[in-house]
Amino acid sequence: MTENNRTHVVVLGAGFGGLTFCQRFNHPTARVTLVDRTNHHLFQPLLYQVATAGLSAPEIAQPIRSILSDRPNVTVLLDNVVDFDLAEKRVMLEKNTLAYDYLVLALGGVTSYFGHPEWEQFAPGLKSLEDALRIRSDILLAFEKAENTFDAAERHRLMTIVVVGGGPTGVELAGAFAELARTVLKRDFRRIDPTQARVILIEGSPRVLSHLPPELSEKAQQQLERLGVQIRTSTKVKDITRNRVNLENGETILAENLIWAAGVSASPLTHKLGVELDRAGRVKVNSDLSVPRHREVFAIGDMALVLQEDGKPVPGVSPAAMQMAKHVTRIIEHEVASPGSALRPAFTYRDKGTMATIGRSAAVAQIGKIKFAGFIAWLAWLGIHLIFLVGFRNKVAVLLQWTYSYFAYKRGARIIVGVQKSDLKQPSA
Amino acid sequence: MTENNRTHVVVLGAGFGGLTFCQRFNHPTARVTLVDRTNHHLFQPLLYQVATAGLSAPEIAQPIRSILSDRPNVTVLLDNVVDFDLAEKRVMLEKNTLAYDYLVLALGGVTSYFGHPEWEQFAPGLKSLEDALRIRSDILLAFEKAENTFDAAERHRLMTIVVVGGGPTGVELAGAFAELARTVLKRDFRRIDPTQARVILIEGSPRVLSHLPPELSEKAQQQLERLGVQIRTSTKVKDITRNRVNLENGETILAENLIWAAGVSASPLTHKLGVELDRAGRVKVNSDLSVPRHREVFAIGDMALVLQEDGKPVPGVSPAAMQMAKHVTRIIEHEVASPGSALRPAFTYRDKGTMATIGRSAAVAQIGKIKFAGFIAWLAWLGIHLIFLVGFRNKVAVLLQWTYSYFAYKRGARIIVGVQKSDLKQPSA
Repeated sequence: MTENNRTHVVVLGAGFGGLTFCQRFNHPTARVTLVDRTNHHLFQPLLYQVATAGLSAPEIAQPIRSILSDRPNVTVLLDNVVDFDLAEKRVMLEKNTLAYDYLVLALGGVTSYFGHPEWEQFAPGLKSLEDALRIRSDILLAFEKAENTFDAAERHRLMTIVVVGGGPTGVELAGAFAELARTVLKRDFRRIDPTQARVILIEGSPRVLSHLPPELSEKAQQQLERLGVQIRTSTKVKDITRNRVNLENGETILAENLIWAAGVSASPLTHKLGVELDRAGRVKVNSDLSVPRHREVFAIGDMALVLQEDGKPVPGVSPAAMQMAKHVTRIIEHEVASPGSALRPAFTYRDKGTMATIGRSAAVAQIGKIKFAGFIAWLAWLGIHLIFLVGFRNKVAVLLQWTYSYFAYKRGARIIVGVQKSDLKQPSA
Repeated sequence: MTENNRTHVVVLGAGFGGLTFCQRFNHPTARVTLVDRTNHHLFQPLLYQVATAGLSAPEIAQPIRSILSDRPNVTVLLDNVVDFDLAEKRVMLEKNTLAYDYLVLALGGVTSYFGHPEWEQFAPGLKSLEDALRIRSDILLAFEKAENTFDAAERHRLMTIVVVGGGPTGVELAGAFAELARTVLKRDFRRIDPTQARVILIEGSPRVLSHLPPELSEKAQQQLERLGVQIRTSTKVKDITRNRVNLENGETILAENLIWAAGVSASPLTHKLGVELDRAGRVKVNSDLSVPRHREVFAIGDMALVLQEDGKPVPGVSPAAMQMAKHVTRIIEHEVASPGSALRPAFTYRDKGTMATIGRSAAVAQIGKIKFAGFIAWLAWLGIHLIFLVGFRNKVAVLLQWTYSYFAYKRGARIIVGVQKSDLKQPSA
């Protein structure tokens, strides 16, 4: 499939890394093929808002083709990666085989259950739009089922949501679930009182948001507790079965909805590369982000293990993926323009700050040495997410949606799609 | 479940009829239970916009509970109707049994295949959000598959969409599909030319929109053809199999997507009532909309056959369902206030006009004796649909979405959700 004389760059994955590469890479004699298994780029930092009925799916997803329509050198293919032949410089897809001159791996991560894949069916993770829509339907359906039952214990179980993992995703989900129950659903039921819903956040380490300084973890914990979230730190999960989580301290929690936000590992496709991986399946790349022994192959974003000067890995966040994409863009552009150039710069990560939102007017943020919490952090969070949200239309729609939710205490995407008859029946266990 | 002394009105279905009843019915000593199998009221006149990627699902769906949250007398249950016992005045649901004093049947309609239920799997209809999301994904996926194949005949088949039925839904779908291919997708592919997509509209009678005057049918046909839709009137379908429709004239059309917009019948639950039905399964109601031999049971909307003075049935449109709901509201309110009153007024339908939209700046409308077509009819269509769209938030969001689509030639909901690995494979036939 390589056309004569034109350097062919194949990019796998249209997340923040892969998309940034395609938007930036600009060379008249090179062509790019971008492969993704979905037709949309997902604004993953707001995925929890879809799961908690705050935003609709199209508001955080844009068609990849549409984003890249003004890039005639980029061909977009909807396809699944099946295997690699790095020696022959080929990628095997389900419907295509692509020969490349350069390969940019940007396949992202998947939810990891730390050696317990059987927990996935009982405690879904949050990585795709499908995950978010499923969680949204399941949570809303639990309140509907509670309204439909007169058994107090059963109601209690139906109105309990357990979130495992106190990182940014877990904190954002727990806060948003608590808000949903306590403000949005409050007046809509006649038999149950949604404000009695329990949201329990379980974290194995001694504090939530352990990547932030302890004082911000404490602020976050206070803000979550003000929303009614029950936080169990230093608490480890022993086992998960249907509607039930057993803790290592011997306690059992019964809950209709269990959400897993405790771990992420690299795409399992990394195992087919035949290169060295870390425990989370990430590719141990060279300082220029190339894959050892394959100068023409790069790995970026959540699937790459890049060590910083202090020995810590670059965090798996979107700004890091975008910075890596820009780094690789520059290397390939330079080499296509000046064939034979051998020296490549090392990648350095610039930490522009970290933030997590907890709910209405509540967030924590660290930018450089400045730490802040509460309303100002929340405004900063809103602004930054709007700036980075891809596509003009989505920015306006999301701003409108948020303004509406803020003032009306309602949510715009409270719909259950795909209810089966059996969903309404009592579970047998 | 009847509480002492309070008249209990059970309403089945939260479409335009059932919802209007619950919003209007107001009596201090009566209580209402509204049952629906989904958690949302669907603005069905815009459902085709979800199927054609113009709007997102939450933009045309509002949680029923949320719409009725200021009506403490109304209890909303998410449940499926299983059976009726009209003699004992009870409705059996999957999880509840409800005893009623009055029963309002507002269960709406389903897609009808005129005795060929086996066609449904090959040519889905458009009645629910699930239908619309499935059609949206299938249509967008067909273009992705076409980009992925180098076989010309296969591409031709993948880029062919057949709509069966030239009523309002069929006309709106065909127009919107043609626009999607010719303007929105136009610049987004590299191997295929989306403007070469074929949209074929098949209608058994001699003209499209046969409920409107012939001159408007002609205008509609011209506007559709200007968009590139191929119209086959006086053409009947003989048989439908996977990706293939055989016509009675012997012709066969191969198409990846077949959409059925040719028929609607009443909810099949009407067959459990034990009362007289017409061929479309509609209940033949008395002039006051009550069910024969059951003064306390009313049927309204698409599931009721109501004859007008000229002998024609009241059409199955939302204004008719809302007018019927208001009529029944007044009867029940009056009888609860003055028990023993025997005289009930007859229902009369007030036709406020009919319109159908064809595409960007294109529509036809009839209001009283005035007929118009083109841009003015389209503006009228926009305005009326915005006025009736439930919920403030949705109006603003939809207006924004439409303005954006109009000026940017883009669509905001062009995402495929739920792609399976197998969806990317070539079909075996």
